[in-house]
Amino acid sequence: MSQNYSFQHFTVQFPAEYPYVAHVEINRPDKMNAFFEAMWLEMKQVFEKLSEDSNVRAIVLSGAGKAFTAGLDVKAASSGPLFSENDLDPARAATIMRRHIAEFQDCITAVERCEKPVIVAMHGFALGLAIDLSTAADIRICSRDVKFAVKEVDIGLAADIGTLSRLPKVVGNYGWVKEIALTARVFGAEEALRVGFVNSVHEDRQATINAGLKLASLTASKSPVAVQGTKEILNWSRDHSVQDGLRYTGVWNSAALQTKDVSAALLSGLQKRTPTFEKL
Amino acid sequence: MSQNYSFQHFTVQFPAEYPYVAHVEINRPDKMNAFFEAMWLEMKQVFEKLSEDSNVRAIVLSGAGKAFTAGLDVKAASSGPLFSENDLDPARAATIMRRHIAEFQDCITAVERCEKPVIVAMHGFALGLAIDLSTAADIRICSRDVKFAVKEVDIGLAADIGTLSRLPKVVGNYGWVKEIALTARVFGAEEALRVGFVNSVHEDRQATINAGLKLASLTASKSPVAVQGTKEILNWSRDHSVQDGLRYTGVWNSAALQTKDVSAALLSGLQKRTPTFEKL
Amino acid sequence: MSQNYSFQHFTVQFPAEYPYVAHVEINRPDKMNAFFEAMWLEMKQVFEKLSEDSNVRAIVLSGAGKAFTAGLDVKAASSGPLFSENDLDPARAATIMRRHIAEFQDCITAVERCEKPVIVAMHGFALGLAIDLSTAADIRICSRDVKFAVKEVDIGLAADIGTLSRLPKVVGNYGWVKEIALTARVFGAEEALRVGFVNSVHEDRQATINAGLKLASLTASKSPVAVQGTKEILNWSRDHSVQDGLRYTGVWNSAALQTKDVSAALLSGLQKRTPTFEKL
Amino acid sequence: MSQNYSFQHFTVQFPAEYPYVAHVEINRPDKMNAFFEAMWLEMKQVFEKLSEDSNVRAIVLSGAGKAFTAGLDVKAASSGPLFSENDLDPARAATIMRRHIAEFQDCITAVERCEKPVIVAMHGFALGLAIDLSTAADIRICSRDVKFAVKEVDIGLAADIGTLSRLPKVVGNYGWVKEIALTARVFGAEEALRVGFVNSVHEDRQATINAGLKLASLTASKSPVAVQGTKEILNWSRDHSVQDGLRYTGVWNSAALQTKDVSAALLSGLQKRTPTFEKL
Amino acid sequence: MSQNYSFQHFTVQFPAEYPYVAHVEINRPDKMNAFFEAMWLEMKQVFEKLSEDSNVRAIVLSGAGKAFTAGLDVKAASSGPLFSENDLDPARAATIMRRHIAEFQDCITAVERCEKPVIVAMHGFALGLAIDLSTAADIRICSRDVKFAVKEVDIGLAADIGTLSRLPKVVGNYGWVKEIALTARVFGAEEALRVGFVNSVHEDRQATINAGLKLASLTASKSPVAVQGTKEILNWSRDHSVQDGLRYTGVWNSAALQTKDVSAALLSGLQKRTPTFEKL
Amino acid sequence: MSQNYSFQHFTVQFPAEYPYVAHVEINRPDKMNAFFEAMWLEMKQVFEKLSEDSNVRAIVLSGAGKAFTAGLDVKAASSGPLFSENDLDPARAATIMRRHIAEFQDCITAVERCEKPVIVAMHGFALGLAIDLSTAADIRICSRDVKFAVKEVDIGLAADIGTLSRLPKVVGNYGWVKEIALTARVFGAEEALRVGFVNSVHEDRQATINAGLKLASLTASKSPVAVQGTKEILNWSRDHSVQDGLRYTGVWNSAALQTKDVSAALLSGLQKRTPTFEKL
Repeated sequence: MSQNYSFQHFTVQFPAEYPYVAHVEINRPDKMNAFFEAMWLEMKQVFEKLSEDSNVRAIVLSGAGKAFTAGLDVKAASSGPLFSENDLDPARAATIMRRHIAEFQDCITAVERCEKPVIVAMHGFALGLAIDLSTAADIRICSRDVKFAVKEVDIGLAADIGTLSRLPKVVGNYGWVKEIALTARVFGAEEALRVGFVNSVHEDRQATINAGLKLASLTASKSPVAVQGTKEILNWSRDHSVQDGLRYTGVWNSAALQTKDVSAALLSGLQKRTPTFEKL
Repeated sequence: MSQNYSFQHFTVQFPAEYPYVAHVEINRPDKMNAFFEAMWLEMKQVFEKLSEDSNVRAIVLSGAGKAFTAGLDVKAASSGPLFSENDLDPARAATIMRRHIAEFQDCITAVERCEKPVIVAMHGFALGLAIDLSTAADIRICSRDVKFAVKEVDIGLAADIGTLSRLPKVVGNYGWVKEIALTARVFGAEEALRVGFVNSVHEDRQATINAGLKLASLTASKSPVAVQGTKEILNWSRDHSVQDGLRYTGVWNSAALQTKDVSAALLSGLQKRTPTFEKL
Repeated sequence: MSQNYSFQHFTVQFPAEYPYVAHVEINRPDKMNAFFEAMWLEMKQVFEKLSEDSNVRAIVLSGAGKAFTAGLDVKAASSGPLFSENDLDPARAATIMRRHIAEFQDCITAVERCEKPVIVAMHGFALGLAIDLSTAADIRICSRDVKFAVKEVDIGLAADIGTLSRLPKVVGNYGWVKEIALTARVFGAEEALRVGFVNSVHEDRQATINAGLKLASLTASKSPVAVQGTKEILNWSRDHSVQDGLRYTGVWNSAALQTKDVSAALLSGLQKRTPTFEKL
Repeated sequence: MSQNYSFQHFTVQFPAEYPYVAHVEINRPDKMNAFFEAMWLEMKQVFEKLSEDSNVRAIVLSGAGKAFTAGLDVKAASSGPLFSENDLDPARAATIMRRHIAEFQDCITAVERCEKPVIVAMHGFALGLAIDLSTAADIRICSRDVKFAVKEVDIGLAADIGTLSRLPKVVGNYGWVKEIALTARVFGAEEALRVGFVNSVHEDRQATINAGLKLASLTASKSPVAVQGTKEILNWSRDHSVQDGLRYTGVWNSAALQTKDVSAALLSGLQKRTPTFEKL
Repeated sequence: MSQNYSFQHFTVQFPAEYPYVAHVEINRPDKMNAFFEAMWLEMKQVFEKLSEDSNVRAIVLSGAGKAFTAGLDVKAASSGPLFSENDLDPARAATIMRRHIAEFQDCITAVERCEKPVIVAMHGFALGLAIDLSTAADIRICSRDVKFAVKEVDIGLAADIGTLSRLPKVVGNYGWVKEIALTARVFGAEEALRVGFVNSVHEDRQATINAGLKLASLTASKSPVAVQGTKEILNWSRDHSVQDGLRYTGVWNSAALQTKDVSAALLSGLQKRTPTFEKL
Repeated sequence: MSQNYSFQHFTVQFPAEYPYVAHVEINRPDKMNAFFEAMWLEMKQVFEKLSEDSNVRAIVLSGAGKAFTAGLDVKAASSGPLFSENDLDPARAATIMRRHIAEFQDCITAVERCEKPVIVAMHGFALGLAIDLSTAADIRICSRDVKFAVKEVDIGLAADIGTLSRLPKVVGNYGWVKEIALTARVFGAEEALRVGFVNSVHEDRQATINAGLKLASLTASKSPVAVQGTKEILNWSRDHSVQDGLRYTGVWNSAALQTKDVSAALLSGLQKRTPTFEKL
């Protein structure tokens, strides 16, 4: 299967021991997995493909080498539209930037839009874009050694590809979010666990990835109708009132409950068997 | 008074030592308090009655027997509209389900709509519907032995009577909510306390109920105008912007401040007496 | 500079060792810094002035004497519109109150609207209005001895100048917020830290203020374009969906990225120098 | 069938020549169909029953006698909670009123919630409550002689059971809505047609009812899956952004498109036959 | 009374024959009432004062001389912050502009915030700012000769003080709004009447003002509790869902219904007398 | 230039006499321009390209042959996912449909997202999808002979690619929208003009296209910074409260006002010259 998933900056694997689980790895280890434009455009493709691949029910995202990602490749960016010298007036320059930011945001949002749960396994450096990216995922875990930072104010800008919109909805400690974002200070695994930014901390990179794969495998063993509905409804509810959440849920489930998975799950439960579910 | 509160599946008591406090208990202990349709319809009646009863200022909800509630009575449900064989086309079946879910949601929401604070005291098993129900309440406490789970994905469905809309607004750790909802794994009292799902943990069922009654009694000793306004405004604010929250509060209090309770409370404060407040 | 900042109930200082940092102190120590109307009207002026003062990049707010603030000066308030005897019908009285509350709320909101980050350093008593005020700020820290309470229900009213709208968005433990607001019970520094109401706890009043100044100084050392954009976008995102947050961010940064601060920051980073930024 | 529909203040008929159409008539002609509490409570029952009756696909609502309805029966209301003398303080009185208004609003909203299209056919006087009621319906038509007025300011109150929330979304002329609501002036059929408050004007009461029945019959001849989905999605879209409207529509139709009605409709179209659809 | 209302750029009169009506006139006739900064700052003061003046129940706004207003005084504006040469980088210049626009918008919004109904009587030229201003009012009327235009694109900018946010909610013809705003073409009284931008058209300036005063007088003769509640609830409902509108209305009226105006109005109705209402 | 715009189902022309105007034509005249999947996917490409093409400032969309478009090619659709026989359970079928509808909606929304104003010139038949498509545009005009219908209920489904979400926000006559959508009845040019669905009516297809080109040309002669900002802000304001609209506008214009177009426009105005603006 993996032959269809050959990308330039990402490896996508399907570990035999974890059925229905895809393992995506950012693969630019010599540059600490720093991102440039071609990478985020490709990442969008990766997650759009996984989103509709009926062989995939959960995804782990990690980084190759010493870091999850050191963030934006500033050197590469400095030759991009944000920094290029031109003689556009500021209004016209703003149009170019708005388009650029919108496209960049959309690539990050591809992770959120992906219909399957995404678990991010972080280690080493996880700076700037790493936070934007991980808050678009469903679950975050990390290794003991990780160094996190909402780094953007250190390079003179407000984070604009997701952190400022999503982090306050991921972590229920708004004062901490403000401090972290206004000072760009580094924080570690223990602090991340305490404030709820990550779900668990693991020994090292490999242990983190293994924990991610195991967790992915657990959710992948459930009905995909139930799991994908759960992700979608939780994301919708985050952005809507409780009443709108309930109504959307009712409409969603009016179709989703008409699945054979319910009886399959119930029967397996009674028979103490592991249920199997049709592809979705 | 309690003679007016005789229900089939719930007991409602008014402990003499806790004035203005009602104690509601789910009362189907031989089935682990598992819910079937008649129960949630009745529960709605219970809370609508308490909501307008001027003798009641705070409510504790607990479960009789070994469990708070094991959730939906799957056996009973399997003869209901969600599982019945019929020859309706999927669009028509969806209409039946939508109506059914909406009615079910409305019964759970009766706890949230109840004008008086509701404290849920949980022990033993608190699965599936238990989470939906408890997130519609104001405060959750539990015994040391409790076993919680957002169980729905294990029976092939996305939770649809409140958990997915309310839990992320109750607990400020979105990654944890995702994990719990996507894996259906069991979690205990300590974890529930750590993430803020419960306010406190107690020795056993009776100690939990006692703690609930005491907490209820404390809030019941305050001005009911102040307490009921506080519940309402907090619930409104959860679903609206800060500006809309402030404006709604101003309009609400333009009437509520015209109460004698303010001077009663102030005077009692000066005189070191316990104030008494007129019924509401 | 400080000569322009002479107020009656507040002192405003610019500590030489912390460039671009303003230190505002509530200055009615003989009355535990209890607020009456002239004080909140003046406070609004203070923060509106600081908001547009290009010499200021971060602000610390603390209280002189034994307390941050004991809250509303109930004695003074009891001669105000909320308690005055009159023969207005309740509808007309409600209009007076609505206007009064709206104006009062607006003074508290001046702290949130202030374009620069505001760090509140609390000690001693921080009751009622203290909570309203501190939740309108960006970061809260406190001394070990502090006594917090959402005191309003104890005087017969629902808190109406911000706590009920903002506290649930500051602290991700909704059950705790309900308990605290429905019972008016006192809580201390440790509990405040655990639930995320404060970012850190310090030895005493002076240590808290010092920590606040240091934190303010750290954020004041960053690009003011980046810092002020970060505050604004975080506040906007709190009240909007993620999609609306992303779009607003893109439009905001289409202008903000056209700053020299980005290259200044990058260059300083490469040269291991501390960058300096033009006034804003 | 109509034997199940015997009510005290409303007649419900099923005209043989208009299959699937119910005709509801307000039936208190000696009092110009003025409403008192028992009537609006009963009206809620009528529409909740029709909403789930699979023999009904469209509804016409009209008034018996000389008027559609002259509005609230002020005499009856003056003995109700809104006008009763009591010694409650204004805060407690406000609670009673809030409950009363909420219940009243809910009875009017039953018309909007009704899953089937509701066409209101108005003649004679259509004052106050008549406007609240008709804006909760889907389509309004009237006779040439009708006299409309948003009458509430004339009795000292802001309309509170729907007009002020719904009329501005029914009629796209906000200045006209303001004028009509702020002056309580009477307006007639022609003006109502011009501003879009009614869809058409007819000779007299009977002609209006006939036109309503014909229009109801036309929509009742279409697929009930399509028609009821259309009503629901239009109502949802009124209160949400276009993006939220599109997403809700997609989820709704993911079930609704799985109906046999689509092929039935297409086939009938090809064969120039009138399609028949299963009950819903 | 008018001695308290002496302003530099506005005249405020209280015509004896129209009790409780204030007539505000823009008074810079030699410049076609073109606005510069001091004028909009003063206008805010005028409407804030009228908003709380219990002698005023309705307001007419017109222009002295040949025009309602020709809009922004471009010459004056060109020496303001929007056009001044400076060496700020575009991010810093944007901050200046954002503050300037926000303040300008707030002055226009003072008309919307004013608790009393505002009727705008327009004649001659009503360009640019005239449209922004009039859409913040409640009712618009005009003379036969008036020339309207959303002029802003003709001077290279998108209208930013209200037209683009309010006009589509005033007029229910979105295509027309787009055309008018995208082309800046002039339109006249008849077209304005047809699309619902104005409520009525009158012979000339004086006839328009007279009609405005008469309409103001009519609404001023009603209960001020009812009228001011109606304005507020209509404005709230424009920006919220129907459900939020209903709830806000219920809370508002829980105080407002406790007015003596209801019985005064009812009694006067029975006695065929004109009611009088206490000040508000 | 047009060589870059060669598409299969659409022609794109740049009429020499209308600078900066693109004319897009649906080009499947032998099938009444009925749409199948490849067409809407291509249409998205067309508008995304035009959106960023700095030679284009306004767009006219029309249909080749006898009709604007007869809507969905039902025959082609019946072999698509919505109608294909399969053995998926209804939950799984719903997933396929949801994806399909979302993609289809996104292609229609490309017209709304296009940064340049889009004028739709309709003639002949404009059924079903034609309404969805035209409501995503900015301005609609038509020929005298046009036949419109929201046709979807006639084929057993609720319109799901935009009409139900956008039409009520285009036309301020909600009763008419309901009637049209619930009955699928045909309506003509005169009725469309009366309710505000179209801006103007023209003699025939060619006259309609000419009028569209002229209107496009007029807006294309204005500052593109001003015009594109106006479109964007109007679309944002449609979906947000007035306050959110004002704030977004302020942020948008903080960059947009820094354009040379303002002085270019002002100077040209003084010199009675036609201004020219740099590309955007």
